[in-house]
Amino acid sequence: MNPAISTWEPIDGDLATPLGFRAAAIAAGIKKAHGALDLALIFSDSPATTAAGVFTTNRVAAAPVLLSRQNLVESRGRCRAIVVNSGNANACTGEAGMRTAAETARVTGELLGIEPSQVLLASTGVIGLPLRADLILQQLPHLKERLAKENAHAVAQAIMTTDTVPKTCVVRSETKGTAVHIAGIAKGAGMIHPRMATMLSFLTTDASMGARMLHNLLLSAAGDSFNRLTVDGDTSTNDTLLALASGLSQTAVIPGNESRAWFVEGLSLVCQTLACMIARDGEGASKLVTVEVAGARTPLDADRVARAIANSPLVKTALAGADPNWGRIICAAGYSGARFDPNQVDLSVNGMVLCRRGVDAGFDEAAAHRELARKELLLQVDLHAGSATARVWTCDFTRDYIDINSSYRS
Amino acid sequence: MNPAISTWEPIDGDLATPLGFRAAAIAAGIKKAHGALDLALIFSDSPATTAAGVFTTNRVAAAPVLLSRQNLVESRGRCRAIVVNSGNANACTGEAGMRTAAETARVTGELLGIEPSQVLLASTGVIGLPLRADLILQQLPHLKERLAKENAHAVAQAIMTTDTVPKTCVVRSETKGTAVHIAGIAKGAGMIHPRMATMLSFLTTDASMGARMLHNLLLSAAGDSFNRLTVDGDTSTNDTLLALASGLSQTAVIPGNESRAWFVEGLSLVCQTLACMIARDGEGASKLVTVEVAGARTPLDADRVARAIANSPLVKTALAGADPNWGRIICAAGYSGARFDPNQVDLSVNGMVLCRRGVDAGFDEAAAHRELARKELLLQVDLHAGSATARVWTCDFTRDYIDINSSYRS
Repeated sequence: MNPAISTWEPIDGDLATPLGFRAAAIAAGIKKAHGALDLALIFSDSPATTAAGVFTTNRVAAAPVLLSRQNLVESRGRCRAIVVNSGNANACTGEAGMRTAAETARVTGELLGIEPSQVLLASTGVIGLPLRADLILQQLPHLKERLAKENAHAVAQAIMTTDTVPKTCVVRSETKGTAVHIAGIAKGAGMIHPRMATMLSFLTTDASMGARMLHNLLLSAAGDSFNRLTVDGDTSTNDTLLALASGLSQTAVIPGNESRAWFVEGLSLVCQTLACMIARDGEGASKLVTVEVAGARTPLDADRVARAIANSPLVKTALAGADPNWGRIICAAGYSGARFDPNQVDLSVNGMVLCRRGVDAGFDEAAAHRELARKELLLQVDLHAGSATARVWTCDFTRDYIDINSSYRS
Repeated sequence: MNPAISTWEPIDGDLATPLGFRAAAIAAGIKKAHGALDLALIFSDSPATTAAGVFTTNRVAAAPVLLSRQNLVESRGRCRAIVVNSGNANACTGEAGMRTAAETARVTGELLGIEPSQVLLASTGVIGLPLRADLILQQLPHLKERLAKENAHAVAQAIMTTDTVPKTCVVRSETKGTAVHIAGIAKGAGMIHPRMATMLSFLTTDASMGARMLHNLLLSAAGDSFNRLTVDGDTSTNDTLLALASGLSQTAVIPGNESRAWFVEGLSLVCQTLACMIARDGEGASKLVTVEVAGARTPLDADRVARAIANSPLVKTALAGADPNWGRIICAAGYSGARFDPNQVDLSVNGMVLCRRGVDAGFDEAAAHRELARKELLLQVDLHAGSATARVWTCDFTRDYIDINSSYRS
């Protein structure tokens, strides 16, 4: 790599650490909890801002997803504002839901002096309940007034639903003496599954690039992070990943240039950090679990095995109980659809071999239990069937997951 | 239908209700619980007996599955005995596991005066722990001695693992003045998923038919019952469905004859009854849930939607909490891969409409909660996209599922 380009270093900060961004959050009364932050606005001051988004693949897409997709196209990726609410997903809300979304974009655009199509929307929360437009519209002027760098930290909190901690990651690099920043926030918890961009996440950067370039880099980073994350196998109606690039660092990311690889490295770092934060904070989760598959015939086979293991309720409950029930892991690999010889499979947890060539490796039960009781688990499976690999992040499955989800609406 | 043929009526009984069968169960010390029945033998006295089996599609298949598949081929479907143990799956046990299975078949054949290839095996329990051959071999003579019609009822108990109740179904019909019986037992609980025959189930009948016919009818009945059942989306290494037909009722089931439709009706009734018993007794389950999808473009689409709903942890936890969170059901339909217009979907629970044309139907929340608190739920989804339908059985997802599965080996 060019010596003038430094590596990306994590730093303290928020969405307004990159130059050109302001934000604000407010309690609009959408969440049931009185006074809880549930509405936020992110704004890029620079008219040169570019934007990109990756959205849920669910056929049942929420109104804000439909409108944001449309606005990215209509504005040719020149969006400058994001309005996000928690407490209500504005999904399965029909025409009324679409009107609320359109009205939110229209009023926001008016207040900020930009086109309605330059406003992106996202919502998260319960599905199927009408989202009261007035709750949002009456707060938009207040949000605009409060737009400030100092208020950006509150946005990560305003997008939380069953998350237990706000999730923020900011990185910094220098190129040719100029500092460039990428910041990201995310909310996750339940309904996390990788058939799409996954959950809500918003990224800001002061690098400069075209909207198409930003879109391609975002897809690439999502493929290595959010799309490799699963909490419960459910793919939400609202999953949204949005990025805004203000361009104010005067550092351009250009096709065919080494700046591309450099920037995508930073972007992936932010996305992977946020993805791991989401897995660790999965609904009721007590552990972050990384599943690594090696020795697969094809990348697809590796992926299938990793995802089957990461999605198996039987595996995830065994991990919750620190039970070295490795047979369930092999079993999940077996029904994944991947081709391999069961008598060749090796399996280890945090480096401790539980299964060698398909049978019990003769491990120490108590030691294995202790290893599995750790907060971070690395499950490594070698199929000895080829050279393809895959990695997926997930969490364990505890009683708390059931408790949280059996009365989410109540 | 021929007036000489009566419908199938459920009756009290067990695997030895059909003519020609004897059975026995014993406590062999394979289960950890002292004195628990864990080994059973089912035997058909008639040399004319035919046999068929449907097995797991998991690439990691247990030793008894591999041997039973082989024996059905080798004996040309003339198997007459089934040896089954619970407490240990004999899966991921390598060469030693295969030797234990082969030795069990050899000794059983010797004792009963039949070929080793006429013996079918099944195992259920923990994966990856060696199955001690001596525990089984030393009990086989005792099992043979105890073979009796009166001992058959104990077999349903001997195959239980986390099941809370034994599962038996017997039906009877008359054709041309002759009574014919079909009996079945099953064990299920966890690791129930329809990519194959599902769990353990053994069927006996005194009808007469060729082995190929029995196989075809078994496949047909499994497709409408066990293959439409899901508890947690996990496909086991040991799932086995076996049927023995003694032929002693002197009633033949013949290709191209109406006897075929008549018999498959009885077989499906037994299998569906057992499948519902399994769903109702799913690990930690508090409810039997039937998912019916109508108005799909294709049967595959209908199937996808039904299975996505039945497998969604978010749907299943909401049902556990009697939470009318219908958005999660629509959401699961949305990511199923089926093609439909979200704005056309209707959804009801036990006949109460929760969602009409994709949006909240304005139902009474308290009434919906009461309806969802029932022990049997019928979820009906109409996609209004065509005329294909599908039905799947499942259960809800409770804290007890987590408790049972987080320390299954301990």
